[in-house]
Parts: sequence; structure tokens; C-alpha cells
Amino acid sequence: MMQAQQLDRIFTALSDAGRRRMVERLSKGPATVKQLAEPVNMRLPSALKHLKVLEDGGIVVSHKAGRTRTYSMQPDAFGAIDDWLRHRKTAMNAAFDRLILAMNETPEEETQP
Amino acid sequence: MMQAQQLDRIFTALSDAGRRRMVERLSKGPATVKQLAEPVNMRLPSALKHLKVLEDGGIVVSHKAGRTRTYSMQPDAFGAIDDWLRHRKTAMNAAFDRLILAMNETPEEETQP
Repeated sequence: MMQAQQLDRIFTALSDAGRRRMVERLSKGPATVKQLAEPVNMRLPSALKHLKVLEDGGIVVSHKAGRTRTYSMQPDAFGAIDDWLRHRKTAMNAAFDRLILAMNETPEEETQP
Repeated sequence: MMQAQQLDRIFTALSDAGRRRMVERLSKGPATVKQLAEPVNMRLPSALKHLKVLEDGGIVVSHKAGRTRTYSMQPDAFGAIDDWLRHRKTAMNAAFDRLILAMNETPEEETQP
């Protein structure tokens, strides 16, 4: 259940193009709110709101030094998504293999014209 | 822009635990609406609504034979997400490499006690 809620939050966090732009920027290195807000034409309060969604999703972390809050990527930001996707792909490949096997088991008179 | 809208739809489609359960089931092979709705305790109209979101996201496809509509995974269901994640990880690794390089370039008297 915890896992499901975490995946809900991560996928929701990444479902917004503006937030993905922030993640694209942060993947290249840490940045301040101002540096993240300007390229996407966002006001600071709006940027902070989006960054909170990314932080709640475990995708970014922030720390404050003096008056400046700096954001950076969680090192394992995409771990939960990777795991979920990998399991689906493994299952899809297995299903595909079963399909091929079933086709090969079809009697010859049906597969040859 | 098209790419951004597609990613919005895919990530939104996967942000719901019920829809992910459907994807988990479909990764193992095609299924009817009924087969998809029952394990997640969904009514058919609700299941159809969720399946539409997955279909709009390009994650599943459906075809109708007689009265039965069957759903299956798009073969490249996760292609766009994979591409986006791969680019972010490449950037994160490059940023990490630059950090290591910068640390190694620190004068010895500062790194050794």
C-alpha cells in the first residue's frame, strides 16, 4: 500500500510538463528556486508549489543555506518507477515468448498455405 | 509540444493505483473489461473510463470481436517514458562525474587533514 501511494505521487509529480522541465534542469545539477522558475516563466510561489510536489514524490530534495533554498535530485529519484516498469516489461516479454511458442506448436497444415 | 502532451497523458495514466493494476494484469496478456474490472472491485463503467485513460496514454489498445472488447498492451507502451528517464539519468551521471572531477581537483592541503 505504501508502495502504491509512493508510485501515485511519483507519476503524478511527473505528469506536469512544467515540473518535468524542473527535473530536466535539476538532472544537470543543483539550482535555486529562482533559477528553476525563470526558464519556465513561473512566479516563485507557483514554482515553490510545484517543487513541493516533486519533493513529496521523492524526486528532489532541498536544503536551505542562509536565505537561499537549493534543490537537487534525489540520487535514486527514479528507482521506484524503474522497478515497476522493469516488472511490467519482464511480464510482457514472457507473454510474448508464450505467444511465439503457441504459434510454433500450431500444426503445420494450419501455418503453411 | 506533442511530446510533452504525450508524456503528460502517460504519466497521468500511470498515477492511479487501479489503472496500474490493470496494466499489471495486461502485461501478462490480453484481457476483457470484465476480467480487468473484477480483481480491482470496479464496476464496468468505471473500468471502461480508466481503460480509456490508458488507451489515450498510448499504453493499451483494444479491439472488439462480436460483443466482447479485449484489451492488450501497446508493444511500445513505455517507450516515451523510457526515453525521458534515460535522458535524465544520463544528465545525472554526467553531473555526478563533474562533481567527482571537481573534488579531485581540490588542492591536497584541503582534502588531507
